[in-house]
Formats: sequence, structure tokens, C-alpha cells
Amino acid sequence: MSLLRKDPIVGRWIIISTERPKKPEEYSFEEPADDVTPAECPFCGGNEAKTPPEIASFHPETSSPNAKGWWVRVVPSKFPVLHIEGALEREGSGIYDWMNGIGAHELIIESPEHALRLEELSENQVEKVLWSYRDRILDLEHDSRLRYVLVFKNQGWTAGSALNHPHSQLIATPIIPKFVKEKLDGAKAYYDYKERCVFCDIIRQELATPERVVEETRHFLVIAPFAPRFPFETWIYPKKHRCSYVDISKEEIMDFSRTLRHTLLRLGKALKDPPYNYMLYSAPNRVPRSGHWHTLNDDFHWHLEIMPRLTRVAGFEWGSGFYINPTPPEDAARYLREIKL
Amino acid sequence: MSLLRKDPIVGRWIIISTERPKKPEEYSFEEPADDVTPAECPFCGGNEAKTPPEIASFHPETSSPNAKGWWVRVVPSKFPVLHIEGALEREGSGIYDWMNGIGAHELIIESPEHALRLEELSENQVEKVLWSYRDRILDLEHDSRLRYVLVFKNQGWTAGSALNHPHSQLIATPIIPKFVKEKLDGAKAYYDYKERCVFCDIIRQELATPERVVEETRHFLVIAPFAPRFPFETWIYPKKHRCSYVDISKEEIMDFSRTLRHTLLRLGKALKDPPYNYMLYSAPNRVPRSGHWHTLNDDFHWHLEIMPRLTRVAGFEWGSGFYINPTPPEDAARYLREIKL
Repeated sequence: MSLLRKDPIVGRWIIISTERPKKPEEYSFEEPADDVTPAECPFCGGNEAKTPPEIASFHPETSSPNAKGWWVRVVPSKFPVLHIEGALEREGSGIYDWMNGIGAHELIIESPEHALRLEELSENQVEKVLWSYRDRILDLEHDSRLRYVLVFKNQGWTAGSALNHPHSQLIATPIIPKFVKEKLDGAKAYYDYKERCVFCDIIRQELATPERVVEETRHFLVIAPFAPRFPFETWIYPKKHRCSYVDISKEEIMDFSRTLRHTLLRLGKALKDPPYNYMLYSAPNRVPRSGHWHTLNDDFHWHLEIMPRLTRVAGFEWGSGFYINPTPPEDAARYLREIKL
Repeated sequence: MSLLRKDPIVGRWIIISTERPKKPEEYSFEEPADDVTPAECPFCGGNEAKTPPEIASFHPETSSPNAKGWWVRVVPSKFPVLHIEGALEREGSGIYDWMNGIGAHELIIESPEHALRLEELSENQVEKVLWSYRDRILDLEHDSRLRYVLVFKNQGWTAGSALNHPHSQLIATPIIPKFVKEKLDGAKAYYDYKERCVFCDIIRQELATPERVVEETRHFLVIAPFAPRFPFETWIYPKKHRCSYVDISKEEIMDFSRTLRHTLLRLGKALKDPPYNYMLYSAPNRVPRSGHWHTLNDDFHWHLEIMPRLTRVAGFEWGSGFYINPTPPEDAARYLREIKL
């Protein structure tokens, strides 16, 4: 079982894995030289028995769960950061606070094919991945121990990926993560002051002076943000104000699939298939109240952030929270706009 | 000139280098295969002309500034992140805010010898480095445009170092960095509630149940913190409550030099000379008021944080602000305590 522990000065929660603690000699800096073969890969089609039983999947009517033939498959992590079993217990001693590591950790296998990048899949396949995100958030919202579901992707070794088969992950936590809370608080403060959504205002201002716009589609705006932490950081905003990703429409998800794929292809062409992370930010889990679901964060606006991992993070960044970005976002947007797809 | 830009949602400031913007093809993931030779290295003794004129140095009476024979030398960065010339100008347009990149960026060259690690220098030499930190903070406090001086060190390529000659850096900023502000705010909230310093309380509790104590000296406590972001993260706390590092005594700095050196040697032995960062956290610059210097943050307590860089940071960490640590700090402290120096 893992533990959530809170720093008594800044209130930051961290997760300690106590199950299989790592010894000093077990840390390694090297990327493994060889990829697993499709025969060994637990995520490849035909190897369904190598993962825990699936939580959900998209598959044709002719195939069965946990068997070959699926399109997208969601399985529990074999090495979960947080565990789904048990009651949430909060404890403390003196100045220190902790809770047991209750949560969910799931893997969304984006294709039965090995060694592809998400952006190399068809639009139709990416659409199924995006529906899986929605379905899993919707399902996990029913667990009253969980406050937030973060869907994210690690592409490439440098970005934290351990397995070269296209997959995303989700981790559901019993508290709202610090960075999400900062977004919620910031959006709320802005709304309280202006009576407008800060994300909607960003969309309006970016469209009015489009030097940071990478692409505008019917339902989405792709921009290099005004103050990006990392070079070529790229955000995808839905133009329609919606706090939760789970309310996305069928038409929007088709556009989102095309837009996400195009954006990743642009970044791949401009930066030679860089390692990247992306994170999907939706509002916190809704709370069931007098018979219907109640959203507490109407001032939030769901979105996706993509961060190519091109720079090393050093002492100044870790110590200050400042980031140094050597490519102005206006330049980055221009490079990305000019890519021929 | 660089620009400071503020994210309109979370209020995070970032620095955009507009002087020499990087093109997509200029990003590289590879560590350069060859180190510079001491003859080429701008930080080696005898190559003083390869750096801008020094700001300060420790040298014997027989040698002169900007000439061979020095022990420790402070020079302006040739590629400064922030620039010392000019007035601070704050501007905005719509929802966006920025200011020009006023600040200081200096390098503390820790030895005239190439390719050593700080912990391989003599205690006496490390002491001079630590005095340099104090002298530079003290001097930069007089610049009323600057609010904070962060001293930090990047050891090794992975930790962000570009040059294999022992050096630390400082960056002085016109605003208090976000992470420092979080520490100040947390310490103040605790003080307001308890009428006690949170750092002093941590020291008391760690000494009472010393499972996370790595070493206790006359003036310092070395601990694996209760909620470390990274495996083998190690903090050095002065036992005496002092908000600003600049008030450190001669006796304390001798002990600090020995303690820092020992701690880095322990980490080096346990983890095979890992890349690491350290950050020195002092109170923000004091404000001259009615003729004498006035410290605004009596509830702060200066300290140093060392972070070996053993793990990759992935989408979950970047997206949530949670960190996953596979080595409990109680284990890390035990490994480090057992190292024979």
C-alpha cells in the first residue's frame, strides 16, 4: 500500500510507494537499449492475458472482452501508484499529516498495434481513445472517495514512458491535486472579479490578435499560450464553455480527435517526434446532490495541455517555480502553423 | 532583453528569452560527448579573460582581481537569463501582464580546478564558496528593483549543468518566486496559528523521533524530509532560528561547510555520484526603513534543499503537482546514515 504525505510548510501532497521500496542501487539513468517485442508486450493484441482483466473496452460485436479483436482497452495498472481497495483513512502525528493511498490507476491502451504514436493512429481510432477518457471519468465520479481524475499521456522515455506501446493513463486521487486547485482558484478569482470565464476571455483575446494561434477549427482553438513553461507548449481549448469534459458532444469529440491528431503531427514534424506529455484538465468530480449531479465549478473550462520535453529542468526552476523558455510562443505558433500536414 | 510573462489563470511567471530565440532544430536531447579541456574552459584558473570582469573574488593578497591565483570567483553570466541594466517596467494588454527582464544572473566559480565536484573540494574551500553566497545576497539586497536572490547549483548534465567545472549560480528576480512565496505564506500561516516557527517545530519533531535524521551537528540538522518530492531528497536546517542566510555566523558557516560537504559525499557514495540540484532558501531581500534594514519575514527560517535527480518527471507530476517517490525517506535516511565517510 502506498501513502499520501503532506509537506507541513507548503501543503504539497506526495505519494510514497511503501510496497516495493527502491534501494539506492536500483536507480538507473539509462534508457533500456531494446524495446520489448510485440510477443512479450502486455499491451499488444493477442496478449490480453498478460494484463489484469479489462475495466472497459471498445471492440466489435464479434469479439469478446479480454480477447483479441478490440480497438481500445482500459486495464488497471499492474504497478498502481494508488489502490482502489479500502476505506480512506486520514491520520496525523504532531505537525505531519498523511492518508493511505486510495485511488485508481488505469491504463488506456490506444491500439492493439505496437510501437506507434497516438498521432499515427486513424482519426476514428483516436476518437475511441477520447471516448474512453470520458467514459472512465464518468464511471470514477461515482466513487465518493475520489475527488479528481487526471488523464495524461507520457510519450517517449524522457517524458516518463516505460513501454513503447501507445497508451495513456489516468490516476484518480482522493484530494484535488495542487496544480488543478491552482487553476480552479485562479479561474474562480477571475470570475468573482470579472463575472466572466478566464478561459473564454483567453479564447476571445487570442482570436482578436491571432499571433499565438496554431489552428482554429469549428469547435476548438489550438494556441501557444502567452506564458508557456516549456518551448512549443501547446494548449487545446474547446470554444464552447463547459467545465467538465464528460459533457462533450459527439460532434465535438470528432473535431477534438482530428484537432489533437493534427496538433501532435505538427509538433512531431517541427521537432522530429519529440518526447511529450499531455494532460486533460476537467472539473473535479461532481457531487450527487438531491438526486441529480451537481457541478461545483461552473467557472472552470476543460482543456488539454501538450508539453514537448525539449529542455532540462534545473535548480532555478525547481527552486523558484519560474521557467525559462528560449522560444517565444509567437515564434512557436508560427513554426507550427507553417507545417504542411 | 528577456521578458517576464504571467500566466493569467494560475499567476505563474515565466521568462522568455527574446534575444537569441531558439529554433525548433536547435533543441537537442544528447549530452555532449566531450568535455571542454581545461585550456578551453572559461572557469579554469589562468583563463580569467574568457569571462566578463569579476564581480567579487576570494584571493590571496599576493594576487590581483581577474588574474590567476584566486580561490573562488564570482562573474556575471555570459548568457544571462535576466539583465541588470535598466528600469523595471510593468505592462499589460487585456488579460495579459508582463515586465521587462530585469534581474541579476551570476556564476560562483567554486575552484580554479576543472572537473571536480563541490564535495571533492576542501572544507576550507567550500567555506569560501558559502561566504560568497552570503556576500552576494548582501550586496544585491541594496538594489531596490530586486526582491529575491536564489542561489542554486546544477551538478551534472541531467540536473541542467552545461559546463563540467564546479560552479553554482544565483538569479535575482524583481518578484518573489512562486515556490518561495508558497514557503513564506505557509510559514506565516503556521506562525499566525501556532505562534511558533514551522521550521523550528520540524527540527524539534525530527530530533524527538530521529528515523529521518541523517546527521546532527552542533549547528545543523540534516534530514530526509517527511514528504519528499524525490528519492533521497535531503534538507539541511540550521538549528538556530534565523530568517536570512546573510546573518549566519563565522562558527556556523564553518559547520555548514563541513555538513554540506559530508551530506554531498554521503549522497555520492550511496548513489554513485548522481546528478543533483541544491537550492539555498533565505528570506526575501530586506527593505531599508528609517535608516536600518528591516526584515519582513521573521517567521521564515533559512535552509538548503538537495535533490538528487534519479527519477524522470512524467505527465502525472507535471499535471497534478503530486510527486511519486519510490524510496520512503526513513529508508533513505538509514542508507545515508550508514555511509562511512
